[in-house]
Amino acid sequence: MKTIKIGILGLGTVGTGVARMLEKEKDLISSKLDAELVIARIADLDIDTDRGLTISRDRLTTDAFAVIDDPEIDIIVELIGGETFAKECFERAIAKGKHIVTANKALIASHGNDLFRRAAEQGVDIAFEASVAGCIPIIKTMRETLAGNTIHSLAGIMNGTCNYILTKITCEGSSFEDALAQAQESGFAEADPTLDIEGYDTAHKLAILNSLAYGMKVNLDDIYVEGITRVTAEDIRFADEFGYRIKLLAIGKRTNGAVEARVHPTMIPTDNLFSSVNHAVNAVNVCGSATGDMFLVGQGAGMLPTASAVVSDLVDIARNLITGAGQRVPYLAFTSERMNDLPILPMDEVTCRYYVRFMAMDKPGVLSRISGILGEYNISVRSVHQKEGAKGESSVPLVMLTSVAREKDMRQALADIESLDIIQGKAALIRIEE
Amino acid sequence: MKTIKIGILGLGTVGTGVARMLEKEKDLISSKLDAELVIARIADLDIDTDRGLTISRDRLTTDAFAVIDDPEIDIIVELIGGETFAKECFERAIAKGKHIVTANKALIASHGNDLFRRAAEQGVDIAFEASVAGCIPIIKTMRETLAGNTIHSLAGIMNGTCNYILTKITCEGSSFEDALAQAQESGFAEADPTLDIEGYDTAHKLAILNSLAYGMKVNLDDIYVEGITRVTAEDIRFADEFGYRIKLLAIGKRTNGAVEARVHPTMIPTDNLFSSVNHAVNAVNVCGSATGDMFLVGQGAGMLPTASAVVSDLVDIARNLITGAGQRVPYLAFTSERMNDLPILPMDEVTCRYYVRFMAMDKPGVLSRISGILGEYNISVRSVHQKEGAKGESSVPLVMLTSVAREKDMRQALADIESLDIIQGKAALIRIEE
Repeated sequence: MKTIKIGILGLGTVGTGVARMLEKEKDLISSKLDAELVIARIADLDIDTDRGLTISRDRLTTDAFAVIDDPEIDIIVELIGGETFAKECFERAIAKGKHIVTANKALIASHGNDLFRRAAEQGVDIAFEASVAGCIPIIKTMRETLAGNTIHSLAGIMNGTCNYILTKITCEGSSFEDALAQAQESGFAEADPTLDIEGYDTAHKLAILNSLAYGMKVNLDDIYVEGITRVTAEDIRFADEFGYRIKLLAIGKRTNGAVEARVHPTMIPTDNLFSSVNHAVNAVNVCGSATGDMFLVGQGAGMLPTASAVVSDLVDIARNLITGAGQRVPYLAFTSERMNDLPILPMDEVTCRYYVRFMAMDKPGVLSRISGILGEYNISVRSVHQKEGAKGESSVPLVMLTSVAREKDMRQALADIESLDIIQGKAALIRIEE
Repeated sequence: MKTIKIGILGLGTVGTGVARMLEKEKDLISSKLDAELVIARIADLDIDTDRGLTISRDRLTTDAFAVIDDPEIDIIVELIGGETFAKECFERAIAKGKHIVTANKALIASHGNDLFRRAAEQGVDIAFEASVAGCIPIIKTMRETLAGNTIHSLAGIMNGTCNYILTKITCEGSSFEDALAQAQESGFAEADPTLDIEGYDTAHKLAILNSLAYGMKVNLDDIYVEGITRVTAEDIRFADEFGYRIKLLAIGKRTNGAVEARVHPTMIPTDNLFSSVNHAVNAVNVCGSATGDMFLVGQGAGMLPTASAVVSDLVDIARNLITGAGQRVPYLAFTSERMNDLPILPMDEVTCRYYVRFMAMDKPGVLSRISGILGEYNISVRSVHQKEGAKGESSVPLVMLTSVAREKDMRQALADIESLDIIQGKAALIRIEE
């Protein structure tokens, strides 16, 4: 039986999961691959902690380059994370003709175009299923399953921390801070949660999926990103009254000559499947020209679910090595010559329905002044919810659901309304997707 | 650019969809494959009907063997259906060294073991993504994505007709007959719906998935099959009161030294994602050792969704042809030497919770006699629902939800209870899965 030798860079949560899985499921994998996947060497700065692995100590090193340079090794698994040293490792592995499996969404989202170009020159496979939505096979589905489909749109709940926090607030009435603290205690939110809760992690994933879906170069910079830190329990309750849930959604839609790419809190009808995806679970919907909507749900993070995606990539590349089928599928679904220059639609031009909440004086004529300004911008109101103010309250929440409007118009209308003397503070704005 | 030539057998709904997709998405497919997929010939008994295809008439024939024997053709797409002539076509194509793509679940479920053995001898690829759950990439997920996972269980809503009928009864209060008639009018239920509504179509799919999941030979004969024809609107209403929906579920579970394989109406908690899968939509859940639950939803039938699965298989095989990577993935996920002889657990030995409805006399002591008999078989009752009888009614429905019990015990207890003079007719029995 042939042996495929693997070098792992990084023994954090996912790296440890991959090593454990390769050791534990060795026989199972051989029974499907007709070859053995063997961990030849592992690099990590900490090689003293016992991670419950059977690999002998002399195969551990603190020197990542020693693993990359090892001529025995066929595939490098990069699980260091970050963009600087990981990129050096990528470039060195490519130069040495080593195939690479990674879970590094930031690296692919920021440097994918360059890395794939270099890899193509060296005939090197790069696989990155684990970089988006954990164990959900969304990369394989986009690259392979949907080969004959023109993709119309994609959307995803792709950050477990945000979905956990929103679920806790929605279903258990937790505060944002308590929910975040619980996510951190449970081990899936980072000590510094900024990347997650501000939406950047989700944007990394959207940049990758948009490229696979629409054949555009990986474009992170032009994605509109808004996190969940301004979502209040009050808005979540109002959403519920109107029959919606609030989720942090990544949206990639084909429009006329451009692609929408936006990450923001989104109101979704309660009977939409996304509304039932709770806690740290991830979900992605892709709408293809032949398939219609396809909806994939699974664990989006965690040691073993992410390791599962890495192992499936390892098996895929191993199959290529065994059958001599290198670069069998283009990195980003489309061959490099057929990638296009589709731009991202400026956020100002995006159209959708809106939920907007003002804090307004409890006086006659308020509603007509607000809806009057909205009307000037061609925005019509479909539902209004205004509660009578309690005694002594100077302002009450006034909630409106609009018809489809253009983002630019909506923002200008809000600026005008916020400047009225009957309005207190800033309006809360949440986009609605059906 | 390389050209891969395809021969299509059968221009029914799916065959027409495949031909249209290959014509319409020709350029898109080339941009992902760096090769052209060209329809070289099509065989169908009816070559006169205009199906909106651009292929020239002289490439149509009524002779399937002429297509199979055409030395120009690389891949045969078998969309004839049925087991007799389709099998002859398979055997002839294999003998000629032609790769095959099919949507024929009945053929794979009944003759897969033999056909795969023959194909292996000739080095021929057989792909069958379209045979299970339409466009949902469940075959690829089982064969490739889950390569490093020990599968614990799988379950699926895999028949659009049944799910449509149950949805209509549940959500719109339709009668079974009306719902079936509407499914037939909508074009996705067959004129003779027996295969669908009696559960056999779902069993075909389960036989295939169980083999992929557990490495066992394809075993259709030992699957327990119960269709939806005995599900009443009354049971659906009672289920709702207890917080459940009724779905036709295929269940494949690993147990100690065997595999559960059963298709039957199943009560599922309303907050389970399966309960939100309505109308003709299909869904499959797989629970892997590393992934945990993974849930895939999509159109399970119809011209284009099924064609999409066929085209993705065509592209996969084309990639193998281009890179010289024949038989890159074992047909049934495991290499033939590593397939096992796991038996299917006899239905008598299966354990689960039960919903049971009796028509009982409205008399004192009825409840204690029934629960007494259940107790004799070690079956305990967790919830009871008994409505007061209206005047003049000789019997009233008595509904019970049990704890986990063994099927054999449950059946014997029911036989004992049905023989009581206080019970009218047969009890209704529905299995519960959480």
